[in-house]
Order: sequence, then C-alpha cells, then structure tokens
Amino acid sequence: MSLEQRYKPFLSSRAEGRQMQPFWNNAVPAHVKQHPQPIDLGAGLPNEGLFPIESVHLNVVNHPFQHRNYNFRSSKLHQQEHGNHVNDDGIDKTHIAHNERELVAQKFQDGSMVDMWRYEPENPQCIPICSGFQYNDTRGLTQMLDFCHKFVEYTNPPAYDDWDITFANGSSDSLFKVFETLAEANVTVLVEEFTFSPTVHNITATGATAVPIRLQVTADSESQGIDVDYLTNLLENWSQSEFSHLSKPRLLYTIPTGQNPTGMTLSLRKRQQIYALAEIHNFIIVEDDPYGYLRFPPYDPKNPFFNPYESNDFTIDQYRNEMLAKSFISLDTSGRVIRCETFSKVFFPGLRFSFIVGNKYLISKILSFEEVSTRAASGVSQMMVNNVIQKWAPGFSSAQEAWLAWVVKVAGQYTHRRNVLFQALQASDAYKNGLFSMLPVTAGMFAALTINFDQFPHIENRSEALQELSYILLEEGVKVVLGTNMAVSKPFSAHRSHFLRITYAYAADDAQLQEAAKRLGQGIQRLHSVH
Amino acid sequence: MSLEQRYKPFLSSRAEGRQMQPFWNNAVPAHVKQHPQPIDLGAGLPNEGLFPIESVHLNVVNHPFQHRNYNFRSSKLHQQEHGNHVNDDGIDKTHIAHNERELVAQKFQDGSMVDMWRYEPENPQCIPICSGFQYNDTRGLTQMLDFCHKFVEYTNPPAYDDWDITFANGSSDSLFKVFETLAEANVTVLVEEFTFSPTVHNITATGATAVPIRLQVTADSESQGIDVDYLTNLLENWSQSEFSHLSKPRLLYTIPTGQNPTGMTLSLRKRQQIYALAEIHNFIIVEDDPYGYLRFPPYDPKNPFFNPYESNDFTIDQYRNEMLAKSFISLDTSGRVIRCETFSKVFFPGLRFSFIVGNKYLISKILSFEEVSTRAASGVSQMMVNNVIQKWAPGFSSAQEAWLAWVVKVAGQYTHRRNVLFQALQASDAYKNGLFSMLPVTAGMFAALTINFDQFPHIENRSEALQELSYILLEEGVKVVLGTNMAVSKPFSAHRSHFLRITYAYAADDAQLQEAAKRLGQGIQRLHSVH
Repeated sequence: MSLEQRYKPFLSSRAEGRQMQPFWNNAVPAHVKQHPQPIDLGAGLPNEGLFPIESVHLNVVNHPFQHRNYNFRSSKLHQQEHGNHVNDDGIDKTHIAHNERELVAQKFQDGSMVDMWRYEPENPQCIPICSGFQYNDTRGLTQMLDFCHKFVEYTNPPAYDDWDITFANGSSDSLFKVFETLAEANVTVLVEEFTFSPTVHNITATGATAVPIRLQVTADSESQGIDVDYLTNLLENWSQSEFSHLSKPRLLYTIPTGQNPTGMTLSLRKRQQIYALAEIHNFIIVEDDPYGYLRFPPYDPKNPFFNPYESNDFTIDQYRNEMLAKSFISLDTSGRVIRCETFSKVFFPGLRFSFIVGNKYLISKILSFEEVSTRAASGVSQMMVNNVIQKWAPGFSSAQEAWLAWVVKVAGQYTHRRNVLFQALQASDAYKNGLFSMLPVTAGMFAALTINFDQFPHIENRSEALQELSYILLEEGVKVVLGTNMAVSKPFSAHRSHFLRITYAYAADDAQLQEAAKRLGQGIQRLHSVH
Repeated sequence: MSLEQRYKPFLSSRAEGRQMQPFWNNAVPAHVKQHPQPIDLGAGLPNEGLFPIESVHLNVVNHPFQHRNYNFRSSKLHQQEHGNHVNDDGIDKTHIAHNERELVAQKFQDGSMVDMWRYEPENPQCIPICSGFQYNDTRGLTQMLDFCHKFVEYTNPPAYDDWDITFANGSSDSLFKVFETLAEANVTVLVEEFTFSPTVHNITATGATAVPIRLQVTADSESQGIDVDYLTNLLENWSQSEFSHLSKPRLLYTIPTGQNPTGMTLSLRKRQQIYALAEIHNFIIVEDDPYGYLRFPPYDPKNPFFNPYESNDFTIDQYRNEMLAKSFISLDTSGRVIRCETFSKVFFPGLRFSFIVGNKYLISKILSFEEVSTRAASGVSQMMVNNVIQKWAPGFSSAQEAWLAWVVKVAGQYTHRRNVLFQALQASDAYKNGLFSMLPVTAGMFAALTINFDQFPHIENRSEALQELSYILLEEGVKVVLGTNMAVSKPFSAHRSHFLRITYAYAADDAQLQEAAKRLGQGIQRLHSVH
C-alpha cells in the first residue's frame, strides 16, 4: 500500500482541497531550444544589490555564559547581573581585551567571527546573503535542509526510507500546520493529560476534540509518563468509555522527553508499546520534541553536583548513543510518526525556526499548506544557524557532530542548573519535613514539584490550597506555574494535578536558583503553618 | 456602534471560536503583597547566557549597489557580475580598503557598523540580543512596534483613532491570516481580475469564493485599475449578475499601487469612489501594499533617464507628500480597511517580516490567530530592521524619516531601472513597428507589456500565440510571466490578458536590462514573422 493510499484518509478536508498552481513555472515543450544564458524578467525578486546589509559578522561563543569569564566588566555585558552574584573565578585568560568592542575587533582579526558575506564562492555549505536574504523555497534553504536531513539520520534515523523534512517558524507553527493538515471537526486527538496548553488550542481551533490520557506521575523511570495500560484499555473499549460519543482517535500528541509540564521522559519500552498500539488502532503519533537534545543523568543526592559532560573523557558519540532518548520516528516502520524539532532551546527562541520530519506524503501536504500561508521560515534565521554550524564543522568529523558538541555544552548547563536547584530544594526544611517531593528529571527545562498533601491533614480542597500556595510564593518572591493550569481537563486530572511546574532554565545563576529554592521551601512551610 | 458590533459579523466561525487561555498569567488578588524582586521559575525561557551568539555586527551600506564602487574586486563581491559589465566609473574614494575583510575591519573601527549587543543599556530604542533573540510577544518587539506605529502615522495616518498593528511573517502570511479571520465557505471575496495568484489560493483555501472584478488596463493614470463603473453596477445589481448564486461580497482584495501583475496604480479619486462603495455595500477592503513605497514619475520618452531622486534638492518630505499614493486606510473613517505592509521589497525578502494595520477589534482577532499558530515573527529579523534604522536615525528628524530616506534610495534605483528598460524597449524595431506597447508604470517592480495583436492579422487564438511567444522568448533568452497565467478566471479576462509581466527588479545591471529588451523585441518580431 502506498503512503498516499495509507495516509490520505487522515487528511482534513481543507488539506485535501489545498493547492498552489505556481504562475511562474510552466512546462516547456521539448522542441524549444532554450537560450543558455537567459535573463530573468519574470521572477519578482529584488536584486541583492538593493539589500541594505552587505555582510553580517557573528560573535559566537565557545561555551554558554562565556561572557561571565571576561576580565572586563562592561555595563553592557553585565547589566542584568547582581553585583554580589558575579562569579569572579575562572577568568578565561585567552581574552585580554579591555572591553566588548575590543574583543570583537580581536576576534574579527583572528578570523574567529562567523562571517556572512553577500557572495560566498569558497564554501558551498555556507549560505551567502544573495540567496539567504532573498525569496526562497518554502521548504527551506538547500544547505540547511541538507544539514537537518543528515542530522536526523545521525541522531534519530527513521526505520523506513520514504521520509522527508520541511521547515517551519518554530514548534508552535509546526504543530499548528500538522493539526491543520490532519485534524478537523469530528476528529479525536489524544493528548497527555498535562501538556503545553497552547497546543490544545491549536487542536481545538481546527474543530477537533482533545481527549486527555492518563499519565503515571511517578519517580520510576520505567513507568513514568503515558499510562500504557490505561491507553490500551481505552482504545480497546472505546465504545464503552466516557468518550464513546467521539470518533476513535486518529492522532496522539505527545512530548515524550522532558515532558512539559511534568519533566517526565517515556522509557523506550513504553515508546515501543505505544507505537504498537498506533499500528493496531491506526493512529498517527505527533511527537513534539523541543527538549529531547537536553538530556542528563538522574539527580543523585549522594553526588549532587555530578555532571558527566564536564569530564574530558565524555564523547559526543557517548551522548548520542547513551544519553539521547530514541525518537518514536526511529521505531517507525510504516511512516505514522510526525516528529517536530526546533532550534529554540539549543540555539535561541527568537529564531522562530523549526522543522518537521515525517513520511513524504504527509510532509508534501504540510508543505502545500505552507505554500499558501507563511511560506519559508526567516532566511536570516536559517542562515545564522547554518553558517555558525559550518564554522564549527572543521574541528569535527561532521557538521552534525559539531552541532551536537554545542548541544552537549548546553545540556551540561542544564545538568548543572538542575543539580543546583534540586540540591538546594532538598536542603530546605520543607523537604526534610516531607511537605513536597520532586519528580526525577532527566531531560529538558522543567521539573514537577509535588505537594505532599497527606502532610496537610486540615486541607480539604487541594486545588484551592495550590492556588493559595502560589500567592504565598509571590509574597516569598518566586514565580511558578500550577499543574492544575496545565491540565487538559481539570476534573479528569483532579487527583494528579497538585504540583508546581518549576524551571531552572531562566534564572540568572546558581545563587538565584538557590535563593529561589529557599523561598519555595519557606512558602510551602508557611502554607503548612497556616493550615 | 462599537467596532465589535460592527465587525463581529465579518468574522469566520473559526475566528470566533479561537481563544488562547495563557496558563502562565493569572490574576493576583489585591491582598497578596508581592515580593519586590521575584525570581522566575515559571517562564519556560532559556537564559540568554545559553545563546551561542554574543553580538552581531551588520555591515550596512549607504546606498544600494555600493559594492560596485569599491576600488577592489574581490571574487566574493563580484562573482555574479559579468566582467564586461562592471562599472568602473565613480569609484567611491572613501573606501581605501584593499579587500572586503579590511573594509569591514575599518568600518568596525570607525563605529559605522550596526552593532547588536547582548545587553544594550545605552539606547532603549535599540533591541538587545537578550530580548530580541528570546521568546517574545506575538504582536512584536516593543521598539519595532513603536517604530511601525509612528511610521503609519508618518506616511498613511488612518482617518480614525482606534487602529492597531500586529506583525506577521511576510505579506503572504499576513494575507493568509487576514483571510482565515474573515473568510470561509459562502463568503465572496472580490479580487482584481489579474492578481498575485497565491492570494487567490489563500482565499479559496478558506472555502470562500474569489470573484474577479474588471480592470481598466489603460495608460491613463486617472482611469487605470479597478473599473469603478463595472464594480458599482455589479454591486447594485448583484442578484441579476453572473455571480447571483454567490452571497454579496464581504471583502475586496486589492493591490492598489504598482499592481501585480499590471503595474497600474489606482488614482486617489478611484480610491475615494471604491471606499464609498465599501461604505454603501458594507464590505471590508484588504489593501495589499508591498510596492507602495517604490514610487516614481511616469516614463518620459523625451527625457528617458529623468530621475528626480538623484537631485540634491529633492527632499524626503517631497517624497512623502508628493510621491506616495494615499493608502485606503488614510481615507478610512469607519475602520473597514486592513492594510498589509512588508519590509520584503525595501529591506529584503528573506526577513519574512511584515505588518498588518486595521481597526483594533479585527487586529485583536488576527492576533488571537497568531497566538495559536505562528506566534511572533523572527526576532532576528525584527531586530535587524529596527537596529539598522536606529543607527540611521540621528542624522534625521525622526527614525521614520531616516527609514524613508533609505526607501527613496531604493525607489531611485527602481526609477533608473524602469527608465533603462523602457528606453531600450522603445528603441527596438518591434516597438517602432507597433507590435507591442507598455502600460505606464509609476510604482513597484512590474510592467505589463501588451502585444498589439491587431498587428498580427493571421493570429486567431491570441492566448495560444502568447504561449508560443513565451517559448520564442526562452529561445531568445528572456524569461517573462504571461498575463493569462495571472488571470483569476481565464474566460472572464479573455480579452484583456494578452500581456507579458516583466520586471526590472532582478536583472544584474543596466546592460542586462538593455540586452533583455533587445531579446524581447527580437522575439516579438519573430512571432510576427512566423504568422
């Protein structure tokens, strides 16, 4: 059965109807002897000589937070830091510049800036301004597409051949396009009961219905995440379930690694079981994986600051083979997984640059939608990522390895931040008194801090108490997100939503994380004392 | 009547249903005494110290094609030029660098680069990397929004107060979002009979129907463009028209200035008449204006290279007051115009950065759609445009004037290119023999070259002959777009579609435009000789 035969029934009626007939590209009969050097008065493109930017020079760091090690303290570099938190250790002696501008001049002189030129005849893997800043193929710029194709093969090779890629404007846009292509009224989409709620709005905006599936909110790494027994039972007995008025699910939306908001990661065994269910019950798995490249070992209270990536022995291949979770797409033999990746968490979010991996037929349908909506992702964003990676590439066996080397550095920072926060939380009285616990986190930006309401015998309404706690925490000086606010259905998840989503991603430094942990502990202790 | 009362009936059912309940922003009761320095463990943002780019340095030119005047000829700068076309006149003596890298080093030293720093405490109008590269408000970055707001007031102030702006990812995306918000099945959208056909796909993808309206394809600048008599009659007698099976139009889509593909510009009088019709028949005008800032005087065969912008006397205010066409929105007293602007033609297309102006109610609905789809436009793109303009600003009375000064330079290039092409076309034998004529063009990138089929008495099927001509032109070595391919309905426009859309925007230089004109003339002459 062809991909089209298999997956056409999954298309929304809008996706089936979409088409773009380009007015500028028409077949030329064989008898026409085309001129070897035609002049193009057809294409509505401004000549690149009209662009106001002639070249762009990127001052790229070797490792995150490098600016904290400079032996100068310009207000520009440090204005957002707290004087008493500046880490004055470990000054990087290779930087002898006295200010930021001098540093850049030096880097420009020694050739370590990433240069983006108007034309780039020397390295075909680098994108020049004349093409990157021009109108471009909706799917993406050739060099960057090529990189991503090889990166998927390098980290998460699909288990079949007919897969493809297209770019989008960040993961929200990827998911919007996926659901516009696959969902509509009378389509049921399974979603994790706690999830990134804007995606639920993506889904319901198509007219489809999102149905929550139960999560095992547990510390056990083999059983945490989607409750497979629950899901199996639900699918096998759909017509007797509370959702029997809805059609059988056509899609499953999941954030399998470093799940938002719970921080949980699905084990390989569970992924295999869920994929098997997809084959049996014929649904498509939409895998949203913004956090998948940020992996780390579980927190170890006996060795709280353990960070394997700081060791010189640790290799990029170890990270790739031993640390990264297996994508659903690497289990996919029939083309039923759509994988959404993004550069937001590992390069930076303002790029608005993501990509979608899936079978060729469905990717072509998503591309048809892009052609009549956003068209290409920002060429500037594509070019920045591509040319930075190509600058790094010569030191590695491939551009893909060079990129993963940066990713490991970022993962190392997240490991450290998670360690600092968890260590400080466990040092708090509230923790020692058993008032809360943390779900183990081995990926991403988020941790779920569960309030042990059994220790609060006088509290009857736990949701109200959680809300009250959030106000106490604002007084103590720490902002968190309530698990209850990220439940797809509050009644469905009533017994599992008494947690706080906390992130170690945004805080300025270790001291701030430690202070936040202290405030969290104090706040929880205060909730206990008033009840 | 409030904007909501007036415009809610225009919303598609999808737009009415869309909503985003942010999980991270909840009202805090007044009794909560918030800590003055809270630490944010809520926001899922990576700290800016994790971004691999520390600063960005833009080598911005003073005028388009400046690189042709350098007294060095690096392969990078000139690889795409033809050796014998390089203009060696007018070397810019201010550049004494011997190669591109040296030039950039010099510019960096003398402070003329546009610098984008991680933090930017000095100039609040400049966007620093810590915010521009971060997750951001969907509507846009504050500084850039502020600039655009003031730019609308500067060039095209709406004739009412309750208007607003939101950003999007290029004009295609703007239009997609506008039509998703306002169109659906059973909605009729009036479109110019020749138009940028991807927009028609945007419209039909919502389920709506696009109905062509007749254009006066004429050289007379007062009467060219939308046929107002035809439109008046159509609207007044809709139920007796050939479109009586469709609902009365709810929207009119128009490219009023430098129309694509005809190059025509609607006179102010016609704009007033069309706006009056919109008030009477209660439709919304969607004004797509990518070319509006590229204005120039009509081509004058007696003074073919006249270019007012090359005169030192010519002022930015003259351009603003005397040259720019009045946007429909500057006639708009009731908030029924949605204006789509873009930086693609005057900055560069790879930005994928545009904005939408309209009444506050409708803009809020478009914004609601953005929240559940693409979210913000690329922060990198927004930042580049903003910070370049802010660099220019000190030399002018406002940042808006600074930007328009660049726009005039680009318009000067287009004026020159239009002049060169028209002069060369009029010098061809085919023109002198009366085989074709050009519609006058006073804006934008396109000109319509009409084949005078009356001079080809043996040709019966003009559409087939136009297709044949396009093949001849490929043999002669010039690519064009056929008017027939840009007709919304080929039968409807059968008698008006015998033109070629040509553009002077993309050619490398004058010599290439002249060669293209020669080839065009030869091709048309050849069509004549074989019939």
